[in-house]
Amino acid sequence: MTGKKGLLVVLSGPSGTGKSTVIGALLDLRDDLRFSVSATTRAPRPGEVDGREYYFRSREQFLDMIAADAFLEHAEYVGNFYGTPAAPIEADMAAGYSVLLDIEVQGAAQVMAKRPEAVSVFLCPPSLDELERRLRGRGTDDDDRVRGRLAAARREIAQAKNYDYIVVNDDAHKAARELDAILTAELCRSGRQLRSIPEGEMFP
Amino acid sequence: MTGKKGLLVVLSGPSGTGKSTVIGALLDLRDDLRFSVSATTRAPRPGEVDGREYYFRSREQFLDMIAADAFLEHAEYVGNFYGTPAAPIEADMAAGYSVLLDIEVQGAAQVMAKRPEAVSVFLCPPSLDELERRLRGRGTDDDDRVRGRLAAARREIAQAKNYDYIVVNDDAHKAARELDAILTAELCRSGRQLRSIPEGEMFP
Repeated sequence: MTGKKGLLVVLSGPSGTGKSTVIGALLDLRDDLRFSVSATTRAPRPGEVDGREYYFRSREQFLDMIAADAFLEHAEYVGNFYGTPAAPIEADMAAGYSVLLDIEVQGAAQVMAKRPEAVSVFLCPPSLDELERRLRGRGTDDDDRVRGRLAAARREIAQAKNYDYIVVNDDAHKAARELDAILTAELCRSGRQLRSIPEGEMFP
Repeated sequence: MTGKKGLLVVLSGPSGTGKSTVIGALLDLRDDLRFSVSATTRAPRPGEVDGREYYFRSREQFLDMIAADAFLEHAEYVGNFYGTPAAPIEADMAAGYSVLLDIEVQGAAQVMAKRPEAVSVFLCPPSLDELERRLRGRGTDDDDRVRGRLAAARREIAQAKNYDYIVVNDDAHKAARELDAILTAELCRSGRQLRSIPEGEMFP
């Protein structure tokens, strides 16, 4: 921790790209980074824990939070709501932590528009063939759902150009190291350094 | 080495900031990076080797190279000429290497104007007091020259805001790791990735 303000980091990537593994490896690399837990109305998958992977909420509860303006962004995606609660993020950033948001492209666009200083990263599979192999290998979706996810992936990948960075996940630890490097580099951006370096007389 | 085009990296920093040590540590970290050796008319310091730290040239030889348009940039500084020969850089970048230029602020501004895609980094001492301590500790300059170098340092530091990144050299290995991260991050910039990822169908 330095006195420097933390970064707001937006990470997107199609379902099956391996975001969760990369995020886990990245959090192991950086003790100045916290993960923003999203709220969702989708059902938990086996092994997922409320408050860890997501805050799992009913549609009614989610609509109440929208009405209370409790989200940085929210979106409906494949029939479910996803949203980023603002309060925990503000608290972490005020404490000097960088905060990582794992959000799909619609929500990411909302955050980038609202918070232009956010650092945005798109995580890509090495190829669409490899993505299809991973989705089928996961064994959680039938053929129709795999095809739906692939079609969604194509639409999401078309938005990659709107992100600051693209990281190709051909190896989760390499991808995590690249994300780590992106955060380190962004903290060295001259605009951020000039606001944080205490030697006022050095930068008149 | 990937098929990706290398970066042109411009590094500046006041005399006494410890650039040489940081550059040595950075070159140890990255085998895809080469150091651009500058030409200069200043006298070699003890231990400096022609073609390693600099191409040491006479004033007459240097003026001939200017006339032949052989430099990416050149400048006069504290009574000596410094310049960046273009040919070796073009050759390294064509071979896929990133190339690091160690140049003072006037030359750096010329390169940034000519090559807007260059990545620029300003290396700062932790404070002006620490810089003065280092300059006096080096024992190569008398009091007048130290004061001249400090005045030059203040003028150079005032230009730090024109660089993409500022790295504070309070520890040479930490500074080298930050430069390493900056290069890794810049190679992940979406503009560069979209030009280099072979899966054409992924980015329509």
